[in-house]
Amino acid sequence: MKIELGENRYGKAENRVVRITREQGTHHILDLNVSVQLSGDFDDTHLNGSNAKVLPTDTQKNTVFALAQKFPAMEPEVFGLTLCEHFLDTQHHLTRVEVRLEQYLWDRILVDGKPHPRAFQKNSTFTRTARVVIDRTIGKSKEAYVTSGVEDLVILKTSDSEFTGFIKDHYTTLPETTDRIMATQVTAKWRYDSHDVQALKRKDFAKSFKQATNKILATFADHYSLSLQQTLFEMGKELITQQPDICSVRMSLPNKHHFLVDLSPFGQENRNEVYIAADRPYGLIEAVVNHDDAPDANFIWPTW
Amino acid sequence: MKIELGENRYGKAENRVVRITREQGTHHILDLNVSVQLSGDFDDTHLNGSNAKVLPTDTQKNTVFALAQKFPAMEPEVFGLTLCEHFLDTQHHLTRVEVRLEQYLWDRILVDGKPHPRAFQKNSTFTRTARVVIDRTIGKSKEAYVTSGVEDLVILKTSDSEFTGFIKDHYTTLPETTDRIMATQVTAKWRYDSHDVQALKRKDFAKSFKQATNKILATFADHYSLSLQQTLFEMGKELITQQPDICSVRMSLPNKHHFLVDLSPFGQENRNEVYIAADRPYGLIEAVVNHDDAPDANFIWPTW
Amino acid sequence: MKIELGENRYGKAENRVVRITREQGTHHILDLNVSVQLSGDFDDTHLNGSNAKVLPTDTQKNTVFALAQKFPAMEPEVFGLTLCEHFLDTQHHLTRVEVRLEQYLWDRILVDGKPHPRAFQKNSTFTRTARVVIDRTIGKSKEAYVTSGVEDLVILKTSDSEFTGFIKDHYTTLPETTDRIMATQVTAKWRYDSHDVQALKRKDFAKSFKQATNKILATFADHYSLSLQQTLFEMGKELITQQPDICSVRMSLPNKHHFLVDLSPFGQENRNEVYIAADRPYGLIEAVVNHDDAPDANFIWPTW
Amino acid sequence: MKIELGENRYGKAENRVVRITREQGTHHILDLNVSVQLSGDFDDTHLNGSNAKVLPTDTQKNTVFALAQKFPAMEPEVFGLTLCEHFLDTQHHLTRVEVRLEQYLWDRILVDGKPHPRAFQKNSTFTRTARVVIDRTIGKSKEAYVTSGVEDLVILKTSDSEFTGFIKDHYTTLPETTDRIMATQVTAKWRYDSHDVQALKRKDFAKSFKQATNKILATFADHYSLSLQQTLFEMGKELITQQPDICSVRMSLPNKHHFLVDLSPFGQENRNEVYIAADRPYGLIEAVVNHDDAPDANFIWPTW
Repeated sequence: MKIELGENRYGKAENRVVRITREQGTHHILDLNVSVQLSGDFDDTHLNGSNAKVLPTDTQKNTVFALAQKFPAMEPEVFGLTLCEHFLDTQHHLTRVEVRLEQYLWDRILVDGKPHPRAFQKNSTFTRTARVVIDRTIGKSKEAYVTSGVEDLVILKTSDSEFTGFIKDHYTTLPETTDRIMATQVTAKWRYDSHDVQALKRKDFAKSFKQATNKILATFADHYSLSLQQTLFEMGKELITQQPDICSVRMSLPNKHHFLVDLSPFGQENRNEVYIAADRPYGLIEAVVNHDDAPDANFIWPTW
Repeated sequence: MKIELGENRYGKAENRVVRITREQGTHHILDLNVSVQLSGDFDDTHLNGSNAKVLPTDTQKNTVFALAQKFPAMEPEVFGLTLCEHFLDTQHHLTRVEVRLEQYLWDRILVDGKPHPRAFQKNSTFTRTARVVIDRTIGKSKEAYVTSGVEDLVILKTSDSEFTGFIKDHYTTLPETTDRIMATQVTAKWRYDSHDVQALKRKDFAKSFKQATNKILATFADHYSLSLQQTLFEMGKELITQQPDICSVRMSLPNKHHFLVDLSPFGQENRNEVYIAADRPYGLIEAVVNHDDAPDANFIWPTW
Repeated sequence: MKIELGENRYGKAENRVVRITREQGTHHILDLNVSVQLSGDFDDTHLNGSNAKVLPTDTQKNTVFALAQKFPAMEPEVFGLTLCEHFLDTQHHLTRVEVRLEQYLWDRILVDGKPHPRAFQKNSTFTRTARVVIDRTIGKSKEAYVTSGVEDLVILKTSDSEFTGFIKDHYTTLPETTDRIMATQVTAKWRYDSHDVQALKRKDFAKSFKQATNKILATFADHYSLSLQQTLFEMGKELITQQPDICSVRMSLPNKHHFLVDLSPFGQENRNEVYIAADRPYGLIEAVVNHDDAPDANFIWPTW
Repeated sequence: MKIELGENRYGKAENRVVRITREQGTHHILDLNVSVQLSGDFDDTHLNGSNAKVLPTDTQKNTVFALAQKFPAMEPEVFGLTLCEHFLDTQHHLTRVEVRLEQYLWDRILVDGKPHPRAFQKNSTFTRTARVVIDRTIGKSKEAYVTSGVEDLVILKTSDSEFTGFIKDHYTTLPETTDRIMATQVTAKWRYDSHDVQALKRKDFAKSFKQATNKILATFADHYSLSLQQTLFEMGKELITQQPDICSVRMSLPNKHHFLVDLSPFGQENRNEVYIAADRPYGLIEAVVNHDDAPDANFIWPTW
């Protein structure tokens, strides 16, 4: 029996970079959580403890902060591409670099209705995410894989949601309903069909992100839902239809149950007015929506 | 040696009530986390295990949901007052009832720029809080004590903050600075001077809350800060000045440190552009700001 | 109208100190989370922004680490006393210092059944806590107030717990039960009657803590419970009876509900075998158990 | 352009099952968090909103509790296999079922040194995990894929760890060290080479788990470490060597940094005694260790 090293990688996770850009009295804030993972031939490190090929995670951290100074005001996806390129260009034994980014959003504080140029309040309505991989083993030259996404986006609708016609078996107790609260916390990631590093660096990811989240929200609001699965597919379909260079969307939607409270023991009727918001268990709906000509996702697309 | 029961209370915590109010096709959502605590003579329960005076926490939960149906669309403070009155009026051996409430805020989803009447996205920019106590042992009749507050409000300014002139001792390494990021997560509670149940139930707490948070934000943004302590006092002073029936404000402000990253080893100058957002340890500034004629806080005002 | 500064304090919170003591090949680990809060006359800081009396929280942090090096292997209570004394002795304008400590516990890893001298696994069964205040305004000389405590101790019993004989009202739906799971997460703090700094520094807090937690656990296990309130009082009474220098115990016990699952729709009988562990809401039982001659708690004893 | 449904699944997550087994006055507790995910042809649900093939997640929840009553005292892996078989046997349109389980551990409370038969304290030193998939599309008959694992196991060693000989580049500031604290929080999953449902149901998973965690701990303690990567590989190699039916181990090891505090500004020498435990960023080491003849992992083995 021989024991071998399989898939492996390492890096510095959760570098909390805050980059301020100052522009004639108006300041801009970029607030990121950046995680780097390097892949390559690290057999000697794992098997023999040689660190000759190891760029320390401490150095990776320094690099993240140093490059944040050199390249101000970038979108998360572009900062990820820049970091991947740096590590691959300076460390030739690396075969692949992955950078995951979370962006925390800040609104300007309103003073007498006017946005303040240098004071901010955190907007925790959602987190913007990005994942960038550049690999030099798959294609002839370096290929980039980019996903953008949104997390922690909690949405709820009080009408136009039913759940009927499902399988009944020995363990069924759920009644059908044609009027329920539907609520979920959206985690969505969408990937772009281009693998060209330079083309991707020129893309307007800010606009794409804004369009995508608006489309997800509007579809959720307007769609008459027969199930959370149907709503998920509809949101994915609308997003891809809107942005042709997005070839695939992956969504994970917990069904955040709001149970109608039985008030009949107290002589009260509950006309879909009073609910208890439950923590656990919760339904969990997960699916990918694809262009029929979407290129292979390879490693960029995590399984569940 | 004799062993006695001291201060005690019990109740049902974290009832997650979602109350939908339907108004000709437009729905409103009230999303609360409600905790009830009852006080009275419970010696027999603790010492002998008699439950003859115990209203079960399960019944308290039922009551919270039943009253949420009977009294729609109330402000958290008023719902708290209503619950306190109910328990005191129906359980005559109780001497005091406390209700703590957290309100989670929802915005209407915008579809083509228009707010949707029945679809919402959670706005996690802050949590609104309230604490209501009604007691029948202090005054001649029942007295109400009400605080309103805000939590999880994260704010940051990139200018007009310095920290100089402090004590230097054997353990000092911190340099003085006239230009730093100041960031904090506001927890504030303010109490009203009235103890009159009916008068308080008529108060416009929605307006008061909106004014208070706007004032806290604007003061933070506009104030030139020599220390977080000074900013805290200024925010409290402005809030009390604005709303004369608020007699006291208690604030707890962690100093969320953003440390300038030293880029000089890499030949780069960091002109207050790149920071690392630190988790722990953090400074913690806590203070109360009072009207000089503020009535005694009694039990309503927790110590630290 | 005049607006004044009320109660206030400041300090550095959550200093994560790990102190290794090396003893001829055997290492010992003390893993603490230390928070310091200083009180004194800080009007000038809050009102005018003068930092002339402010010992920066950064300096407090340095001091915590420096003293951890000077005084190895101390119990949390004694380290807290040492820190309080240091700040009061070197900063004469301070009137009171509070130090809160959490201790995380580590077991030695067993290799072939033998404890390893220098390798550890974290034991998260509970967190040990301490709170130390030294004040120089109350007595003639400095007075120390010390509490020890335990947190995150989750316990459960599958027999000898009932809940009957409670009040029934319009909102009651809970049936009585003579056989239920009782589970809680213990937060307990106990205070010592001595205020003498030197006497307290000589006390064997390790032994006291071990006895106290063992007594809480054994009482919970052995006591036939008619309510969680009764069990709470019994645990407090036993702890005080066992250790005469503890004058008061404060406990906060969430009733972690385990609901019997109704399997009758599936033709199965649930003979107290299958439960769902619920998250929220939960009962919350809070009480203090006192010696009849317990001295005044003053500020050391937080209200709820 | 056509838009299609890709990979998808749904189920009920985080069913908190507590199963008590009573045996002549001695009670046993099985405390699980169970998540079910069903796969099959659900195009019609997503595209047209038909629920004709949907077994509601509510029914899945009921089934989890009902089967927990029917089959007491099972190991998590076997309970997972039982649930997978049930869903596949009763819902013929399903192609694959996955069950993930977390087991929380409880110790008997000691009373006068003796384990109590019916009272427990939660042991949060680690969480035991399992993941079971049964699929009927890959082989000729149903094939089972089982992983066992451990999470939240925090370990630390104060000697025998160095980090030297690494790459130095423009962004390097880290000094080499031959004596450091090494600490990590182990997340490990190992998979068994058998795919035979009945054979797996007979396996002694309790023994396997105990051996595996003991081996991970002992290897960590005894191994002289030149890097966390080397330690990871050693732990995996030892585990596979010990248990020949485990064909692969996947580990994710955050490097929980403990930084030596610089006490020289205060005239103190820090001889590897005082550390600050840092939260973020952290190193992250991830790798798989394999038998050279390990069968294909297919879907059972998540990528990072």
